[in-house]
Amino acid sequence: MIEIELEIHVRRRNMPLLNSTTVALLKEIERRGSVRTAARELHYSYQHAWDLVDGVNRAASTPVVIKQRGGEGGGGAHLSDHGRNLISEFHAIEQAVKRFAKKLNTELNL
Amino acid sequence: MIEIELEIHVRRRNMPLLNSTTVALLKEIERRGSVRTAARELHYSYQHAWDLVDGVNRAASTPVVIKQRGGEGGGGAHLSDHGRNLISEFHAIEQAVKRFAKKLNTELNL
Repeated sequence: MIEIELEIHVRRRNMPLLNSTTVALLKEIERRGSVRTAARELHYSYQHAWDLVDGVNRAASTPVVIKQRGGEGGGGAHLSDHGRNLISEFHAIEQAVKRFAKKLNTELNL
Repeated sequence: MIEIELEIHVRRRNMPLLNSTTVALLKEIERRGSVRTAARELHYSYQHAWDLVDGVNRAASTPVVIKQRGGEGGGGAHLSDHGRNLISEFHAIEQAVKRFAKKLNTELNL
């Protein structure tokens, strides 16, 4: 059986802003309140998770992940309002793309 | 400026069959009549090009790239009718996806 999948890439000023990988990471950071714990849950190295977060923060108009420094046990991290808006918009796009892919698959001539 | 891009992955029985990379390689093979020359044009190693071709041939219901062995200067390669059909269907999908992405981008709330 042949199937079409569509992978979403959201860019800002030609920089990669969101895709399914970064959105999953951002949601895990929001859930865990920590980049380190989110990285562990997703089996990423801490460095790789931070590189992804850093890429998103650079591409966005205002930071998406806010790091809290200091305090006992080191600082946590959370999403900004802008970050939460981006994620809910990404999910809306995802739904529209899924509907379209489903339609494409039913019309397929392969 | 924020922009959505949609990357197409065509799978058969869950194996990757076509994407923009493999389609570009297949078209270059058809143009050059040779996997080696196509690889060189696209700056791939010969081994990498063959791995891609092999993946496509395994995923397809019938082979997409036909290798001609022997003859002076070694054998060439060309696409089967099935391969040419797959490529033209991929282009039709690409056009539909581009139109949809354009529409998504005009409706974007980001």
